[in-house]
Amino acid sequence: MTPFSSDVYRRRLARVSARMQSRGLSALFLPPSGDLEYLTGFMRRPAANTDIVQPADWLYGVLLVPLVGVYVLAPFMVANYVRHHVKDRPWLKDVIYLPEHDDPRAFLAGLPRRFGLASVSGFRLAVGNRTWAETVHHLQQALPGLQVVPVGDLVSELRAVKEPDELERMRRAAAVADTAFAAVVGKLQPGLTDLDVAAEVDYQLHLAGAGHTSFPTGITFAGQGDARGADAAREIGPPARLRLEQGMHIAFDFGAVVDGYCSDFGRTVFCGEPEPEMARLHELVMAAQAAGMAAMRADGQATGADADRAARQLIVEAGYGEWFWHRLGHGIGVDVHEPPFLTASEERRLEAGMTFTVEPSVLRQGTAVRVEDVVVVTPQGGEHLNQATRELIVI
Amino acid sequence: MTPFSSDVYRRRLARVSARMQSRGLSALFLPPSGDLEYLTGFMRRPAANTDIVQPADWLYGVLLVPLVGVYVLAPFMVANYVRHHVKDRPWLKDVIYLPEHDDPRAFLAGLPRRFGLASVSGFRLAVGNRTWAETVHHLQQALPGLQVVPVGDLVSELRAVKEPDELERMRRAAAVADTAFAAVVGKLQPGLTDLDVAAEVDYQLHLAGAGHTSFPTGITFAGQGDARGADAAREIGPPARLRLEQGMHIAFDFGAVVDGYCSDFGRTVFCGEPEPEMARLHELVMAAQAAGMAAMRADGQATGADADRAARQLIVEAGYGEWFWHRLGHGIGVDVHEPPFLTASEERRLEAGMTFTVEPSVLRQGTAVRVEDVVVVTPQGGEHLNQATRELIVI
Repeated sequence: MTPFSSDVYRRRLARVSARMQSRGLSALFLPPSGDLEYLTGFMRRPAANTDIVQPADWLYGVLLVPLVGVYVLAPFMVANYVRHHVKDRPWLKDVIYLPEHDDPRAFLAGLPRRFGLASVSGFRLAVGNRTWAETVHHLQQALPGLQVVPVGDLVSELRAVKEPDELERMRRAAAVADTAFAAVVGKLQPGLTDLDVAAEVDYQLHLAGAGHTSFPTGITFAGQGDARGADAAREIGPPARLRLEQGMHIAFDFGAVVDGYCSDFGRTVFCGEPEPEMARLHELVMAAQAAGMAAMRADGQATGADADRAARQLIVEAGYGEWFWHRLGHGIGVDVHEPPFLTASEERRLEAGMTFTVEPSVLRQGTAVRVEDVVVVTPQGGEHLNQATRELIVI
Repeated sequence: MTPFSSDVYRRRLARVSARMQSRGLSALFLPPSGDLEYLTGFMRRPAANTDIVQPADWLYGVLLVPLVGVYVLAPFMVANYVRHHVKDRPWLKDVIYLPEHDDPRAFLAGLPRRFGLASVSGFRLAVGNRTWAETVHHLQQALPGLQVVPVGDLVSELRAVKEPDELERMRRAAAVADTAFAAVVGKLQPGLTDLDVAAEVDYQLHLAGAGHTSFPTGITFAGQGDARGADAAREIGPPARLRLEQGMHIAFDFGAVVDGYCSDFGRTVFCGEPEPEMARLHELVMAAQAAGMAAMRADGQATGADADRAARQLIVEAGYGEWFWHRLGHGIGVDVHEPPFLTASEERRLEAGMTFTVEPSVLRQGTAVRVEDVVVVTPQGGEHLNQATRELIVI
């Protein structure tokens, strides 16, 4: 990822330090996470079927000590990665490597002295919400008297409204999804499997400039040939290895991480002219998306619940409410899912510059009709970041 | 994933319950994790560029109460997934859905009564090491007097030695990697990019039966055309978008999850006859692997440190020690990295049925020569689970 300019991170770090001061927090530890990426540009690696497992990996992360500096704490095993990612980032003061062979708790006990502290009595360390229980336990054992406090919304509140530089990256991430989708549609033909289509999506996302995908690509073949029951359409997941036939339709759900920001995209493509009811459903989810977006006005009143209600109402009135079983959307940025949400219980006011997915659907046995775009809140309502067509696509 | 038979999970749950009793632990909470998969067959989903983010997701997991039962705690948002994965698994007693709209802490405060407890005073709840700090905090706030204890090695010690049914799955996971590698080698030709090769690896892994990859596939083009500096070869990561030319070589690092068990595989392929030094390096890493494996005897004495030392000695004596900068290998099973390790500090005795990667390498500027196989410990030494050739491959 190309980092933002030094000013951006210094400003974000200053804002979070001020919030820490007002909450009486002495320092902040963040493991690799969206919060850490936002504050420092220090990136997570794409996930594996494991957490990093090695001695002292539970202390891998960044320690922010206001007025002192921002320190990367890293096991030797990831030293190459860390070296590469702290280079030319003067807002990261130093890297402290964790001992691989000695007891990391002894190392931990010596850490306060390193920062000029005689004791940690009264010291309140904020930790990212998703810091490991193991980490908190070792901290408390090694440093008696230390108060450890989960960070709550300390950083995530700052992340909700995107700055212009962030919106530019969100637009590029959306454009990568648009470009990949257009390329894949051009290659669709009967006989392909959903696995073939998913592989092509991933390949095209990379060709178009993605670093990695936002989540495992979901390709659902549904329609006449699909006797898998309702759950298959309701649970967009790994390919079921079906073969595309005339009369089926394909629901797409995929996204890419581009320069640290995520896209999340959905369309439905029909193989052969759809039945009238399917064409109506396609129109219905598009209308529901438009209604949800119209309600996403930064007018000081509208909430995520209002947007969810506006979209849902159309689908309920058309008699398909039972099959639109999930929320209208979720916040998106450095994480593909982040607060706030477009859901019945979301009472936070929408603000200009917030970004959400808007993704109504009708998912039932043999039917998987959906659309998904990333949308930015403006005073006049939601505005699409994606440019891909929302017209009916028939191949 | 096809679960093991009911007996397998009942036996594992009984073993962990006995260990809990001897440690004075009243119950165990595990978030989606390798430990949870091992004990119950309740699977993680492949990871996304986020953690699940929604109200009450911090309590998503499984609660094991000895003599009472095993309960899945799940947000409504993942209800379809959960329903599908608890079906026909009688060792999972019930699903408790978490409130999406109400305060989850109130729900939490009512949980002890649900299990017939008047209070939690003296109640010691073990939590998986990688439970979130947020989860522990909410538990302690909602249930004053509750003692929360990270689980340490409670479950991971049970996981180290694989049962025959597990080894059968590990062999299948290794075979999927072997099959994909053979298919990809057949398609290699000058002009392809490392991105093309990585996409082909992923596609072939899925065709051969993988559910998903163990980690993002690493394809490193190195050699004459490579002026990227030493870190590029030392940090196997996302494709650099180089084009394959005569005189280059390709280091592969990939794996697949098959029925819940991971493979992790590596070879080096030469595009055109290698220079004599490169051919010698290929021979050297193969010899180092063989030496490491010979030391992996379950004789009551040998440790992971012995295996690491045996392999490393050959590379050091040949003058390349500086460029074999990482450990010889790591435990592998439901997690692609799990304890114990083949590293200088690993003093645990090797036991028959433990499974490790054995992956010596020489990684320096313009050179990325590596091999990696999954190996099971036997009384006579390590035994390959992979069948792919270890002879020099030239295309």
